[in-house]
Amino acid sequence: MTDIANNNADYRLVYWPIPGRGEFIRLCLEHAGARWVDTPGGVDEVMGYVEGRAELGDDSPQPLFPPILRDEKEGVVLAQTAAILSYLAPKLGLDGEGAAAQAHVLQHALTGLDLNDEAHNTHHPIAAMLYYEDQKTEALRYAEVFRRERIPKFLNYLETNLARNTASNHTCLVGSSRTYADYVWWQVVDGLLFAFPKRMQTVLASYPHIKNFHQHIKADERIAAYLASERRLPYSDGVFRHYAELDAE
Amino acid sequence: MTDIANNNADYRLVYWPIPGRGEFIRLCLEHAGARWVDTPGGVDEVMGYVEGRAELGDDSPQPLFPPILRDEKEGVVLAQTAAILSYLAPKLGLDGEGAAAQAHVLQHALTGLDLNDEAHNTHHPIAAMLYYEDQKTEALRYAEVFRRERIPKFLNYLETNLARNTASNHTCLVGSSRTYADYVWWQVVDGLLFAFPKRMQTVLASYPHIKNFHQHIKADERIAAYLASERRLPYSDGVFRHYAELDAE
Repeated sequence: MTDIANNNADYRLVYWPIPGRGEFIRLCLEHAGARWVDTPGGVDEVMGYVEGRAELGDDSPQPLFPPILRDEKEGVVLAQTAAILSYLAPKLGLDGEGAAAQAHVLQHALTGLDLNDEAHNTHHPIAAMLYYEDQKTEALRYAEVFRRERIPKFLNYLETNLARNTASNHTCLVGSSRTYADYVWWQVVDGLLFAFPKRMQTVLASYPHIKNFHQHIKADERIAAYLASERRLPYSDGVFRHYAELDAE
Repeated sequence: MTDIANNNADYRLVYWPIPGRGEFIRLCLEHAGARWVDTPGGVDEVMGYVEGRAELGDDSPQPLFPPILRDEKEGVVLAQTAAILSYLAPKLGLDGEGAAAQAHVLQHALTGLDLNDEAHNTHHPIAAMLYYEDQKTEALRYAEVFRRERIPKFLNYLETNLARNTASNHTCLVGSSRTYADYVWWQVVDGLLFAFPKRMQTVLASYPHIKNFHQHIKADERIAAYLASERRLPYSDGVFRHYAELDAE
């Protein structure tokens, strides 16, 4: 939906031209068929926010990092992936029903985002601003623990909670319909399949609900169309990177 | 308020006996004078949740990590610091007014929690399960970047947004009254003052709003009483640790 002219878009995402943390938001906007644009000003636009040059209005804080969402109708500028997702959720039909379910959706999303952050740290354990090559020794050590302990620990959380949710026949995390938490976890599982293919093939054998969950969302008409489009950016220099030396069964 | 008998408490926090990530929740409960208990079953109770032995009811997911909150009236079991804070906020009078302000409160809280996580990584850059001594080389390298680049970057965010908020005379982050985001940032600033006293003395000279914000909250009647009580646990083996070798001006 990013070919909509700027002035007709309801939402403007501001993010780097990689999947990264923007991808969770893109998936939710695509799910709902929202009218949105993806950073029409490119990297300069992102830098405008990061460097404090962007117009924020009186009521929106200065963001620290992208992703940033502009709600064009409401004049709201908002940062932080989980805050953006939770703000968009009722507008996109992706929230839980009632305060407890909404809190559980946020719990699941934050847990998935923790795993996302740890996946990022496998190639940047010392500092995001340094090159991978300058922290490769530490990366090898971090990735070994990540593969052996952290991937199974987090995926066990996902499998357990999909198994517990009979209301959706184990296809969603909360209640009987999809929420933004499902898109967070879908993207993290998809990214791990790209970055750690050997390790993921090994562990997924123990997680039938996760395998089904991943396929189920991928087969959705709108999501399939998005994934086949140019709007879905290829994995490259973002959170999920494939370095053969960091993967193993 | 933790001396209330179990069966009269509205909220039960389940966390390790350290400040850590539980501290954000403790501060908010104390702010509101809530009836709450702090992990009456001790470490065994925490392990019960982590190992999947705790009673969750039908509608609450299995948590992955503490902190965990039980809303005893509603029968809700909830994990993830920011999800717990955002769930408690309307009940404790600590939320923003309206969807946009609520999202901004969550944005600020999540940004403060990011800094909290990076502070944790200064002594555990490779794996939380390994001893500090077994990752000290990496910790020295991580902490150097953290002190030089990350502390100023995040505190500049806090100072900028306190300066922008004239509605509260720069004492709160969103609107004219305190929210849980203020307690998140207060705790992170307080923890950094403990862990990196040299570095914090240097940088705070440039951040008058942060200095005032930290003192202002500390002087509140309820917060001062809490900080002077045994309920406020001393910094020890949690997120904020003072290792002289990791600090510098």
